[in-house]
Amino acid sequence: MPARAAIPRATSNRESRVIAVSAFRRRAVAAATLLLLLAPVVASEPVDLDVVARIRHEAFHRSQVAANLKELTETIGPRLTGSPAYVRSAEWARGKLAGYGLGNVHDEVYDPAFGRGWEFRAARVEMTAPRQLPIHALPKAWTPGTDGPVEGELVRASFKTIADIEAQRGKLGGRIVLLDEARAYKPSDRPDFRRHTEEELGELQTFPMPQDAEPGAQDTRLDEYRKRQALVRALNTFFAEEGVLATLSISSWDNGVVRVTGGGGRKAEDPEGVPDLVVAAEHYNQLVRAVERGQAPRMRVDVDARFTSETDLPATNTFAELRGSTKANETVIIGAHLDSWHTGTGAADNGAGVVVMMEAMRILKAIDARPRRTIRIALWGGEEQGLHGSSGYVARHLADWPTPTDPEQAALPRAFQRGTGPLQRRPAFDRFSTYFNFDNGTGRIRGIYAQENHAAVPVFRAWLEPFADLGATIVTTRNTGSTDHIAFDRVGLPGFQFVQDPADYFTHVHHTHLDTFDHVVPDDLKQAAAIIASFAYHAAMRDERLPRKPFVERDE
Amino acid sequence: MPARAAIPRATSNRESRVIAVSAFRRRAVAAATLLLLLAPVVASEPVDLDVVARIRHEAFHRSQVAANLKELTETIGPRLTGSPAYVRSAEWARGKLAGYGLGNVHDEVYDPAFGRGWEFRAARVEMTAPRQLPIHALPKAWTPGTDGPVEGELVRASFKTIADIEAQRGKLGGRIVLLDEARAYKPSDRPDFRRHTEEELGELQTFPMPQDAEPGAQDTRLDEYRKRQALVRALNTFFAEEGVLATLSISSWDNGVVRVTGGGGRKAEDPEGVPDLVVAAEHYNQLVRAVERGQAPRMRVDVDARFTSETDLPATNTFAELRGSTKANETVIIGAHLDSWHTGTGAADNGAGVVVMMEAMRILKAIDARPRRTIRIALWGGEEQGLHGSSGYVARHLADWPTPTDPEQAALPRAFQRGTGPLQRRPAFDRFSTYFNFDNGTGRIRGIYAQENHAAVPVFRAWLEPFADLGATIVTTRNTGSTDHIAFDRVGLPGFQFVQDPADYFTHVHHTHLDTFDHVVPDDLKQAAAIIASFAYHAAMRDERLPRKPFVERDE
Repeated sequence: MPARAAIPRATSNRESRVIAVSAFRRRAVAAATLLLLLAPVVASEPVDLDVVARIRHEAFHRSQVAANLKELTETIGPRLTGSPAYVRSAEWARGKLAGYGLGNVHDEVYDPAFGRGWEFRAARVEMTAPRQLPIHALPKAWTPGTDGPVEGELVRASFKTIADIEAQRGKLGGRIVLLDEARAYKPSDRPDFRRHTEEELGELQTFPMPQDAEPGAQDTRLDEYRKRQALVRALNTFFAEEGVLATLSISSWDNGVVRVTGGGGRKAEDPEGVPDLVVAAEHYNQLVRAVERGQAPRMRVDVDARFTSETDLPATNTFAELRGSTKANETVIIGAHLDSWHTGTGAADNGAGVVVMMEAMRILKAIDARPRRTIRIALWGGEEQGLHGSSGYVARHLADWPTPTDPEQAALPRAFQRGTGPLQRRPAFDRFSTYFNFDNGTGRIRGIYAQENHAAVPVFRAWLEPFADLGATIVTTRNTGSTDHIAFDRVGLPGFQFVQDPADYFTHVHHTHLDTFDHVVPDDLKQAAAIIASFAYHAAMRDERLPRKPFVERDE
Repeated sequence: MPARAAIPRATSNRESRVIAVSAFRRRAVAAATLLLLLAPVVASEPVDLDVVARIRHEAFHRSQVAANLKELTETIGPRLTGSPAYVRSAEWARGKLAGYGLGNVHDEVYDPAFGRGWEFRAARVEMTAPRQLPIHALPKAWTPGTDGPVEGELVRASFKTIADIEAQRGKLGGRIVLLDEARAYKPSDRPDFRRHTEEELGELQTFPMPQDAEPGAQDTRLDEYRKRQALVRALNTFFAEEGVLATLSISSWDNGVVRVTGGGGRKAEDPEGVPDLVVAAEHYNQLVRAVERGQAPRMRVDVDARFTSETDLPATNTFAELRGSTKANETVIIGAHLDSWHTGTGAADNGAGVVVMMEAMRILKAIDARPRRTIRIALWGGEEQGLHGSSGYVARHLADWPTPTDPEQAALPRAFQRGTGPLQRRPAFDRFSTYFNFDNGTGRIRGIYAQENHAAVPVFRAWLEPFADLGATIVTTRNTGSTDHIAFDRVGLPGFQFVQDPADYFTHVHHTHLDTFDHVVPDDLKQAAAIIASFAYHAAMRDERLPRKPFVERDE
């Protein structure tokens, strides 16, 4: 999943978990738990327990999730959108999916000019004076390498607005610049790796009353977004013009975890800036203090990173399908994003989702499932840069708002565009049933977010019931965001993400150099593959498409 | 503190904390708690509360611990024994101690030929085929650098005994060798940073019944030690002869934490081996699996490390003192080790102890304390290699066993030597009162280990009482080991280490690249400095020396 900042409209209730449980909430939790216990009795939704049993057997006794994840993350490695490794991963996935006997295996372009390819090989970073200090630092994606070691004085400079640039003109040439302040270490009082407690699962089934946005909040966010974008472009141009050797930022987590996403210039037209690295907090703070002591510290930086294309490359999603019988032109889609950031191997984010979805398809084929609707797997690209692959697919095949005629509006992310008229639905919109996504790390499925689709709640309860013994028990009416189901949800189509155990997703691995195979729990992925295979199957067999929630047209 | 393996005879009850509390233990805890509550009433040990108040005020309102720790760890950096930085740190400490107005500030050699100096500057390590993978790896101390990048095929080889060497002869030249197997990730269910709970403090006050050693256990340990030493020497010779490019081991902790101590050849006579690095577990496992896939992986290794002397350098401890009045030739010593490992900055291990002890001395001078006995501060070297500085001091000034005449025995660490006759006590032995040590990381003092010195228990209870409001409450009869108080304890002199909160010492910082300033909590060090200043003062004012426990001569 991408950082939340990348998806301004995506809703998430994740934070509300930590709010103290009020007396009201405790009652609500008790009521929700009671409802859950009654649910299987109330629901009339049919569940084919023979198919469930065959799915579980295939998922647990002939699992390919660990082997596939190892191949994807270690033979191929990280998969930045547009990188040569991304292309190899799509080829690998197509080969596997065809090997499972699935049909219509293909890639489809969602953006003919997504950006330049980019690769990172290795970095060596060190403070060389007043004393030697080896530094753990990794470059942001789409930033240039150094073409061999460069060395210069270390300085600190703050750029909050474009006005700050002029104050620094002429001062930073030949220097290495610390962009952030030091940050005090925050010890955590919670274990790094956690499963949801029953209390948390109860709490998750309460619905926090939505708060009306402040008047003009959307305008404010848009304004902030524009300013930030303009500042980044201006800084990249400024640093390159001034001959800044490199810029450094502090990792957003402590304990040596280096959290890195993108920077520089993805698009060929963007200023690419200068080498730009994220530094482990424990090292970054030392650099800031060395500057503050006035000891004229010096650094040497050697980053082996390069653009692999001069022009913007097309970007693709990968698909395969198990063709339906009597309702073959209706679709159920299951998906996850194939792209990742570049410093780990994209194992939890989102190799886990990729192999779970591939496994669900393999299972359905292996048990010779004959769904009425077509079940399609979608492996999305460009998720980390803002759900580009899934949004592009939905826009092309299902529904979208008209493209703005105003070029300034057209340049904005889809979520910020406005005044472009009512939603335009494609013919396939009515033939679409539902989309399921898996992208919250390795965590075992504990339930599903119904995204306020109340008519879907009893359906999900029925489908989940045969997996209660595996810890998957709750259907929450809450919304969750930050990943590809939002591309469907925002146009009024059913699109869902599962409730997953937190595991160590938000302590060690999300967008970090530690997002590697060893931090994924294969048993969790086996469970997820079984549940998702069953959900997809039952959605494809249902007499009706999955119910839809009321669609509220955007009010601009 | 050093790794436990380095100090074979040191006793530690630390593990027993995790044993389930039996019914007996629960009663014992309750009894111990009751005793604690009664203690201040029972004890007749005098405490000068006016001095305590002045110590606390100076410690809390004019603290130098944070400023000193920053200087020590960031201006000077890590302080491997024998390195140029160690020499600078001793000079820095002498300057500070003299500046506080202390007397007899000096270094003293404890080993005229401890080993060669060594420095580490930076490393760049990467897998280059079949795909690119940047690796976080750091060299063991006293291992050679690469003199520029070297590249070769990656292979795995296991060396459990010297016999394994012959099987590999002729196979490893020009290669980079993985010495360990892959290790599965072990998620933790406890917070990384912890304070002791009241229950744990209660449990710590129970005394686990000592278990008799198996017959011949000492012989077995000695035999294992000899074999391990012989294997290390043989391997270092073998790897160099074969032209192995580098050897790699897995970090003993997960989550990207790189834990590194020594390797190679500290002594000029030792074979220095080849570049030898410890790799983050998440990266190491990937390397092993790449080999196991038979993909002929290749690596490039560039380690900038060097010996700073060709010959063995003398090694020193640093001392200063507040001279006593009426009993000036009797001593109370407080100490911590100045040396550290080389990949962090030795902040928790043991910069924290160094600045706490310096601060305790500063406080006593600042409040114009006039102790009857001389209070000496000792900053030890060579602790990490086996308590060399403190043991050398004790042997020279207080007591030691005769040096073995058998050269093979003489070559063994002091703790393994045997049959050398009864303990030889120097004149100062009788004039020595007690030693206090601080070396369990940043953790706040919660009490003290009395090391089975039962006569000292009521004394410590009385001295601790004015610090109960700061969380320091327990006196446990248990032993603890693994640091410099053992040098005193083993010759029958009172030597103590405090009970400290675990903090993140054994999750993030002990011997790791994260042992840095930010992982130390200055308020904890202020508390420790106040308590230790008060303990030292009261020990120096007492009519009698601190009581001693019965000395049991070694039974070899």
